[in-house]
Amino acid sequence: MLAPTPKPPYYAVIFTSIRTSYDQDYIETAIKMEHLASLQKGYLGHESAREDVGITVSYWKDLESIKNWKAQSDHLLAQQKGREKWYAAFKTRVCLVERDYGFER
Amino acid sequence: MLAPTPKPPYYAVIFTSIRTSYDQDYIETAIKMEHLASLQKGYLGHESAREDVGITVSYWKDLESIKNWKAQSDHLLAQQKGREKWYAAFKTRVCLVERDYGFER
Repeated sequence: MLAPTPKPPYYAVIFTSIRTSYDQDYIETAIKMEHLASLQKGYLGHESAREDVGITVSYWKDLESIKNWKAQSDHLLAQQKGREKWYAAFKTRVCLVERDYGFER
Repeated sequence: MLAPTPKPPYYAVIFTSIRTSYDQDYIETAIKMEHLASLQKGYLGHESAREDVGITVSYWKDLESIKNWKAQSDHLLAQQKGREKWYAAFKTRVCLVERDYGFER
């Protein structure tokens, strides 16, 4: 369930959001975006959870991959609907992962 | 609810985890760590959510602040209990936030 990312450096996009409404279109779009992102060149994985705030972190090989995914046509439409309908607020943070460590039983 | 972080650059620590067991000590420790982190020098805010995976992103002024929080004595004890009891797996990623943008109604 934790994204099996390679040795740093690589990139992370932290997308945090507060939702307004919630409809079937949102659910379908979220599933579709997850699938389409995973097909993009440079995609390394993602992790996602929502309680009061939704957090999706996607991991990418480089800034070029992030830029291409941001400009992907279905994704552009989803971003537009997000602003118009689904989100009261969101923040996207583009980050260089410099170091990581972990633990697994 | 979204962390009111300043203009980049600043740092993010992405902590993702899979929990094993879940006890009162875990809940109390989580609340205490959240409080103690917020008192640390260089702390900028955090966002947290858990479904199948738990994601906590904390934001920091610089690497020095992150290093100091990692070595804080109560936090060291919590990290030890995390490895011994609470987590089946976790990953910590230390990241430089290079760029951010957002939206709020």
